[in-house]
Amino acid sequence: MSTATRAATDAAAMRRALELAERGPARGVNPRVGCVILSPDGRPLAEGWHRGAGTPHAEVDALERLGPDGARGTTAVVTLEPCNHTGRTGPCAQALIAAGVARVVYAVDDPGDHSAGGARTLRDAGIETEAGLLADEVEAFLDDWLFAARHRRPRITVKWASSLDGRVAAPDGSSRWITGPEARADVHRRRTAADAIAVGTGTVLADDPSLTARDADGSLLDAQPVPVVFGRREVPAGAALERHPHDLLRFTGDDLVADLAELQRRGIRSLFIEGGPTLASAFLAAGLADELLVYLAPAVIGGPRTAVADVGVTTIADTLRYDFADLVRLGDDLLVVARPRTAAHPDPSTREKA
Amino acid sequence: MSTATRAATDAAAMRRALELAERGPARGVNPRVGCVILSPDGRPLAEGWHRGAGTPHAEVDALERLGPDGARGTTAVVTLEPCNHTGRTGPCAQALIAAGVARVVYAVDDPGDHSAGGARTLRDAGIETEAGLLADEVEAFLDDWLFAARHRRPRITVKWASSLDGRVAAPDGSSRWITGPEARADVHRRRTAADAIAVGTGTVLADDPSLTARDADGSLLDAQPVPVVFGRREVPAGAALERHPHDLLRFTGDDLVADLAELQRRGIRSLFIEGGPTLASAFLAAGLADELLVYLAPAVIGGPRTAVADVGVTTIADTLRYDFADLVRLGDDLLVVARPRTAAHPDPSTREKA
Ligand SMILES: NC(=O)c1ccc[n+]([C@@H]2O[C@H](COP(=O)([O-])OP(=O)(O)OC[C@H]3O[C@@H](n4cnc5c(N)ncnc54)[C@H](OP(=O)(O)O)[C@@H]3O)[C@@H](O)[C@H]2O)c1
Ligand SMILES: NC(=O)c1ccc[n+]([C@@H]2O[C@H](COP(=O)([O-])OP(=O)(O)OC[C@H]3O[C@@H](n4cnc5c(N)ncnc54)[C@H](OP(=O)(O)O)[C@@H]3O)[C@@H](O)[C@H]2O)c1
Repeated sequence: MSTATRAATDAAAMRRALELAERGPARGVNPRVGCVILSPDGRPLAEGWHRGAGTPHAEVDALERLGPDGARGTTAVVTLEPCNHTGRTGPCAQALIAAGVARVVYAVDDPGDHSAGGARTLRDAGIETEAGLLADEVEAFLDDWLFAARHRRPRITVKWASSLDGRVAAPDGSSRWITGPEARADVHRRRTAADAIAVGTGTVLADDPSLTARDADGSLLDAQPVPVVFGRREVPAGAALERHPHDLLRFTGDDLVADLAELQRRGIRSLFIEGGPTLASAFLAAGLADELLVYLAPAVIGGPRTAVADVGVTTIADTLRYDFADLVRLGDDLLVVARPRTAAHPDPSTREKA
Repeated sequence: MSTATRAATDAAAMRRALELAERGPARGVNPRVGCVILSPDGRPLAEGWHRGAGTPHAEVDALERLGPDGARGTTAVVTLEPCNHTGRTGPCAQALIAAGVARVVYAVDDPGDHSAGGARTLRDAGIETEAGLLADEVEAFLDDWLFAARHRRPRITVKWASSLDGRVAAPDGSSRWITGPEARADVHRRRTAADAIAVGTGTVLADDPSLTARDADGSLLDAQPVPVVFGRREVPAGAALERHPHDLLRFTGDDLVADLAELQRRGIRSLFIEGGPTLASAFLAAGLADELLVYLAPAVIGGPRTAVADVGVTTIADTLRYDFADLVRLGDDLLVVARPRTAAHPDPSTREKA
């Protein structure tokens, strides 16, 4: 095969592998991965994809479709670097070596703690191994999984709904409703897209929230985020959280970085922090907010109940700085989406690497 | 003259009168008014306009251009109802009667306390008097003067610049700069368009503000708002306010409605409230904000220094409600313009009439 023909064949196979990957489950601990095995002259021999934790990885799934020795001398085209660790399914790198694959082409390096290094293992075994084909497409496809794996925590959205002057409740504690139905519907739409949703014990005790994603008539949307509560105080017996379709996850919140790493290990890639002010402020102060969602009502309330408490800023130079990423009118209200101005407050969990 | 010809002649004369009115001074106690005197067959005989307090009103200015008896049997076309009171210049209604004018056409009723009633005086004297011609155009032209005359106070803008969480300073009091240069330039542009700009004594003592409208290099813009300070505490000798091109106006703020009526009597049609939190909150609580200008930086500060303090809201149903009128990106920042949702908190100075 000419170099150009080979490149075109590889790219077509990678595109197909990405299609296969899309068949996998969108949530969970493992990434969605697809694999195509090509004959030495570039014909597709077998396809595989990963169906979720506990099932074969994409490479093994594809190899299993070929008889013994059927993969000898072939090229494996796979969306993610073959894993190197022995998990529930055995390392894919070893499986490829054992099957006699001659060449491996993959898109994106495996950022996993234990699973990375597959490419080196393959090369050490004399297998021609190429990285980076269609990397941008695969990066975009695996975005939230890669983010969580690289940062060892979910991507975090801190959300609040306040008046223009930053209040989440009136002095007497009443807060229904500051924002209107369109803004509330938007919150539920975004909740259903998140893997988990967290509040502090203060909010549990004050509001007895259900932490579900619901539509306008109150019925549950299809996908529900896992409910998470931070804090030492007990969730009262009979709390609405007990009726959540998913089991509640509890953390003390004493070491947020460790708690978040545990969430990532459990497959939580995106986490919505819905308050209250104390918990939200702790995340903001720690630089653990990848996105702010601020629903602003055209209202002024005044008084002591601010959306944000102390975020560790004492003088103006320490201000937590963001950039407006989006401004969306929602009925009478305004949604402000902001993202950290990265230079200003690095994420502590990645600070060593930066 | 046919009715149609007369209507066309009147309208052309009113348009001309509005052009004449525009020659008058845009600021001050008196409105800009123009007048055209038409012969019985509709030819323009004389024009007049008002050049500011202490000079003749438009009608008198026009009449003076005609010899004795020159106005007998004519039609006076004037943008505002001829005044009825004896001020520095004598009532225009009397002047028109004395001149023997046969017919008066005007656009907008005079809302003044003392000056209104000219139309009745004219009619009582047997002069054919018509109101409302081109009223919309003249209303728009006299907008701020009419607002101030009708409400017996200036139009009030309450402005603050805060972080997304509603803070105007860090806990240590530092606040330079929360918003960026584009937002600050916008504030100065709007200051120069306002007749007056006010702060409380707390801000004077904390910040020693100059309350001038300046361009980026710090030089004074052409038009300067009159500086106003509310509160009992003294402005310290040597304060920057002493170097303001206009003399400082002082009010205790004990009776804001009375203070505002006094500002209106002095010709202040638009007032910018620039803080601090205590004064701004007093205006908001009294329903004395016709517009909010909130400059929001994409930043979070937390802590005690909120833009707005107590605005008299104790429970959520009392929330002060506005509508977003405009959203403007200014560099990294966002300007939110909001106006009262009128039903929710009526202006106390007009409550009797509503
Ligand atoms: N309008 C809105 O958008 C909105 C949303 C949510 C809540 N709220 C209101 O907020 C109020 C509750 O406020 P809140 O601030 O007390 O509630 P909160 O932030 O939900 O809970 C605070 C608690 O979180 C726990 N926590 C866990 N990890 C923490 C950490 N790293 N740093 C600090 N605290 C941590 C602590 O609980 P332990 O003491 O148990 O350890 C702390 O007391 C309620 O009135 C509720 O209605 C409003
Ligand atoms: N970032 C910004 O946009 C911004 C703007 C302005 C100010 N600030 C900050 O705000 C702080 C000053 O805050 P502040 O609230 O003390 O200042 P303030 O609102 O300027 O002044 C409060 C004073 O206004 C007087 N006042 C007059 N009429 C009043 C009324 N009807 N109701 C209540 N008070 C009335 C009272 O003074 P007497 O006691 O003398 O009678 C009161 O103590 C400073 O730190 C300043 O830097 C920030």
